[in-house]
Amino acid sequence: MAPPHRQAGRVARFAGPFPPLRGSVALGVVAMAAVAAATRWRLLLVLSAAGLGVTGAPQPPNILLLLMDDMGWGDLGVYGEPSRETPNLDRMAAEGMLFPNFYTANPLCSPSRAALLTGRLPIRSGFYTTNGHARNAYTPQEIVGGIPDSELLLPELLKEAGYTSKIVGKWHLGHRPQFHPLKHGFDEWFGSPNCHFGPYDNKARPNIPVYRDWEMVGRFYEEFPINLKTGEANLTQIYLQEALDFIKRQQAAHRPFFLHWAIDATHAPVYASRPFLGTSQRGRYGDAVREIDDSVGKILHLLRDLSIAENTFVFFTSDNGAALISAPRQGGSNGPFLCGKQTTFEGGMREPAIAWWPGHIPASQVSHQLGSIMDLFTTSLSLAGLEPPRDRAIDGLDLLPTMLQGRLTDRPVFYYRGNTLMAVTRGQYKAHFWTWTNSWEEFRQGVDFCPGQNVSGVTTHSQEEHTKLPLVFHLGRDPGERFPLSIASTEYLDALRQITPVVRQHQEALVPGQPQLNVCNRAVMADSQQLHHRGSPSVLFCCREIMATQSKSAHEGAARRACAEAGQLSLGHRGRHL
Amino acid sequence: MAPPHRQAGRVARFAGPFPPLRGSVALGVVAMAAVAAATRWRLLLVLSAAGLGVTGAPQPPNILLLLMDDMGWGDLGVYGEPSRETPNLDRMAAEGMLFPNFYTANPLCSPSRAALLTGRLPIRSGFYTTNGHARNAYTPQEIVGGIPDSELLLPELLKEAGYTSKIVGKWHLGHRPQFHPLKHGFDEWFGSPNCHFGPYDNKARPNIPVYRDWEMVGRFYEEFPINLKTGEANLTQIYLQEALDFIKRQQAAHRPFFLHWAIDATHAPVYASRPFLGTSQRGRYGDAVREIDDSVGKILHLLRDLSIAENTFVFFTSDNGAALISAPRQGGSNGPFLCGKQTTFEGGMREPAIAWWPGHIPASQVSHQLGSIMDLFTTSLSLAGLEPPRDRAIDGLDLLPTMLQGRLTDRPVFYYRGNTLMAVTRGQYKAHFWTWTNSWEEFRQGVDFCPGQNVSGVTTHSQEEHTKLPLVFHLGRDPGERFPLSIASTEYLDALRQITPVVRQHQEALVPGQPQLNVCNRAVMADSQQLHHRGSPSVLFCCREIMATQSKSAHEGAARRACAEAGQLSLGHRGRHL
Repeated sequence: MAPPHRQAGRVARFAGPFPPLRGSVALGVVAMAAVAAATRWRLLLVLSAAGLGVTGAPQPPNILLLLMDDMGWGDLGVYGEPSRETPNLDRMAAEGMLFPNFYTANPLCSPSRAALLTGRLPIRSGFYTTNGHARNAYTPQEIVGGIPDSELLLPELLKEAGYTSKIVGKWHLGHRPQFHPLKHGFDEWFGSPNCHFGPYDNKARPNIPVYRDWEMVGRFYEEFPINLKTGEANLTQIYLQEALDFIKRQQAAHRPFFLHWAIDATHAPVYASRPFLGTSQRGRYGDAVREIDDSVGKILHLLRDLSIAENTFVFFTSDNGAALISAPRQGGSNGPFLCGKQTTFEGGMREPAIAWWPGHIPASQVSHQLGSIMDLFTTSLSLAGLEPPRDRAIDGLDLLPTMLQGRLTDRPVFYYRGNTLMAVTRGQYKAHFWTWTNSWEEFRQGVDFCPGQNVSGVTTHSQEEHTKLPLVFHLGRDPGERFPLSIASTEYLDALRQITPVVRQHQEALVPGQPQLNVCNRAVMADSQQLHHRGSPSVLFCCREIMATQSKSAHEGAARRACAEAGQLSLGHRGRHL
Repeated sequence: MAPPHRQAGRVARFAGPFPPLRGSVALGVVAMAAVAAATRWRLLLVLSAAGLGVTGAPQPPNILLLLMDDMGWGDLGVYGEPSRETPNLDRMAAEGMLFPNFYTANPLCSPSRAALLTGRLPIRSGFYTTNGHARNAYTPQEIVGGIPDSELLLPELLKEAGYTSKIVGKWHLGHRPQFHPLKHGFDEWFGSPNCHFGPYDNKARPNIPVYRDWEMVGRFYEEFPINLKTGEANLTQIYLQEALDFIKRQQAAHRPFFLHWAIDATHAPVYASRPFLGTSQRGRYGDAVREIDDSVGKILHLLRDLSIAENTFVFFTSDNGAALISAPRQGGSNGPFLCGKQTTFEGGMREPAIAWWPGHIPASQVSHQLGSIMDLFTTSLSLAGLEPPRDRAIDGLDLLPTMLQGRLTDRPVFYYRGNTLMAVTRGQYKAHFWTWTNSWEEFRQGVDFCPGQNVSGVTTHSQEEHTKLPLVFHLGRDPGERFPLSIASTEYLDALRQITPVVRQHQEALVPGQPQLNVCNRAVMADSQQLHHRGSPSVLFCCREIMATQSKSAHEGAARRACAEAGQLSLGHRGRHL
């Protein structure tokens, strides 16, 4: 761990991370944030039924959300991965409920994580960009946006039911001070605000920091080494220990807990600790999966050991589809589905998903409910005896009736890129209103979101509009989106008749949030090639915007310093990997 | 069922099926065939260890081989099919051993079935054509070839250990009299010699016959209706009853049995009985799979009910990969693998495979042994306490050490099309010496073996030779064969160093059998378009060859009559579906 003076000194040179707050200052901020959240929530509670955890009834179940990074639908044995190297996750499925039709809310990391914690589509929470049409955006080191204070995050709401919340791993909802997870309801954090790209030039562009709560405790590639050559890193073991320690502490204190285990070993550059390196049939990516599988096994084992398994709801899923641009050595598998991360084909947004709650969810169940990562928000509130906020649109569904009684609820799945509604699924039918993989320019440079796949008129490299005559697929017969229905068929007309009113209703009611990921074009995937060029138009655009700001707050000062540096950055990071 | 006089009368008009032999004549032939086989086998037994079933030791286990038709690796829930509609097969896997790396011996039906029953590559048994390079061939109605008498088939050998054998369903090893399954060791047959294509013109080209033992009991689309419009057919239920009845009779007689359940509902035109029609999320193909799954459940249930489960070895697999040319309505899924039936990519030859033998094979096992459909021959002999013939090359491996003790044996997988060795896998490495999907001409007409898939330089439409510099894939990291190893890499050289000696050894020792599928070019897939034209060159070639034969045997006479008719055929069958 870095000595305090070193950390403090380095933060001043760093564009956008949280300043290291300590001791009473930090506590004061925590307390204030908690009061603000409680006040907001109390108002809502007046309107809602009193929750289980609020009324002194038996302690509500613990909630453990295991969120993977860039892991694909096809990466687990139970989902058909041929090497079948995930015995613990397969067992988790055998003891719980498997969701083959579970979706993220966006094919990219930051927006999908925002969706999980807010229960809302990124278009509502502002986790998108309007810089370009159908552009994906996230929060790389350079961006100054993040989760707005106006959003109510799951841990913030769970406080009302007495939960203690911790996030382990990747936050990705903004790295400037106002976005710190402990300002948004988490009580503890061990992890980093950004991806573990690097290593970066120490002076011009520092490595990504790692935090314990308010305190920066080191940086990737420094205090937390990642060996890009061998793939060795001890991070999953550290994240595992953080999870186990937190669970033990909460159990000892008899406090209900929410643990958000958002680890990143399967995101390029993929890594594993020494005992797992070289053990997979699938190469380094498989080593990372094996270590994660082993860790999940240890976590579930601890829950049983502590006799709290029957009082702990566990859900496993991933933030977006496998990053096929990193395949085969650093990317996973989307099974039989089309394309991967960054696309709104099934490979980009359908996720592995397993619910586990012994004694409550019957074993060996498969539910064909169309599920969403946003449902984890609403379901968690329901577990805590709380109702979702009523002052805003919530897209998440309470999955408890599905998991406990096998109920199926008709609901659509919306597939967005940026602020563009690309596709909608209802029942077995999926209608594409826009098709796009990536630009010809990127594709010609070797960036391929769909390697080995080519569906004529579907996996397009120009943005093709189909709003007048959508491309429709039957996902039961054709999960790989290879055979569009004939527009002359009765089935096509019937499918559209089901989907059209849902889309109209959605679009009429939609109030997009203020776009948070617009500030700096560096966040825009399609421009990722520009990141390699110092002084690019996008970097200059970003700096102009920041420099034009008149505010004299500490945050703005940090942003100005960051921007002043941006003009001199030596950008060595791999812009393709988000 | 058709009255006898009608059957007898119609056979004379039919090109190539077995004549209906009855009563003592039939019995005489059976007896003679059995004696001949026994004599051959007794000689071999002198050289081999005395088998379990031969020596009066406890009754050897029953053997039940469930062989699917065109079912793909990705069609079962346990292999990741998203609709997960195979609870019985998934349970069978949970109670037994799953093989994710199991292969057929040829990407087409007849040769793969010959390989199962002989334990030998089709290139050895003669189940190939030399009419063209890398051409697939099978036994459509017009062909006069079939399984040579010189081949020793599994049921023929199992007789030595006291087994009674039955084949239910599709034979496909030749339909002329000398190829009848009861002449090759089976004691009973219910099914047909060919595919259930049709309906055909009753006069010029009759529908495919259905046999009970020596007797023709009707024809597809007539006594055994298949409704192409609704997809309704009762055949799987009939095949199920045949299996259940046979098992009950053998159990009552305390006879060890071999049941080869070779059903064809998943081969286009796919069908299901009324209770299953419209029940699948996957459409008609899924209905067929659901009925098969239900039937397998009933068969395993009967074994348990009769208390013979622990004395019955059951193996489930398929003859070749899913026929993607029939997808999505009439074809299945090859999961994450490349292309399908007729190709030597993984989608064409990797098969679902489950071994089940309660009390012997431990439950919930996965074996990464490279397995082959030919292993079922050797393994079955081993179960019966017999050794494979020593006077010929046998390609099948005894999988009992794998299934009972978890042993892994290093062995290559050879991928042939016709007499061309297209590819070889050893360990995780697969080297392609030739790549080809189908011809440009076919492809331009809409025949696509790899819909939605396109790996540049790999899924080629011209036959590309790579014998000097093979394309090499690591199947663990890249099961979809999308990323060939760099020929400049050490890994590439190491992989070739492992594969090259195996190929050399194989080719040096190889003695190809007399090609059986040459007689009539109609058997050649790449010429399938010609089948629609009466008097095509291939039909004329076939007839010239037959007419030039001087023999006056009854067989030749039948062939001459068939050929005389061939010139006047009105060919209505769908040449694309084999």
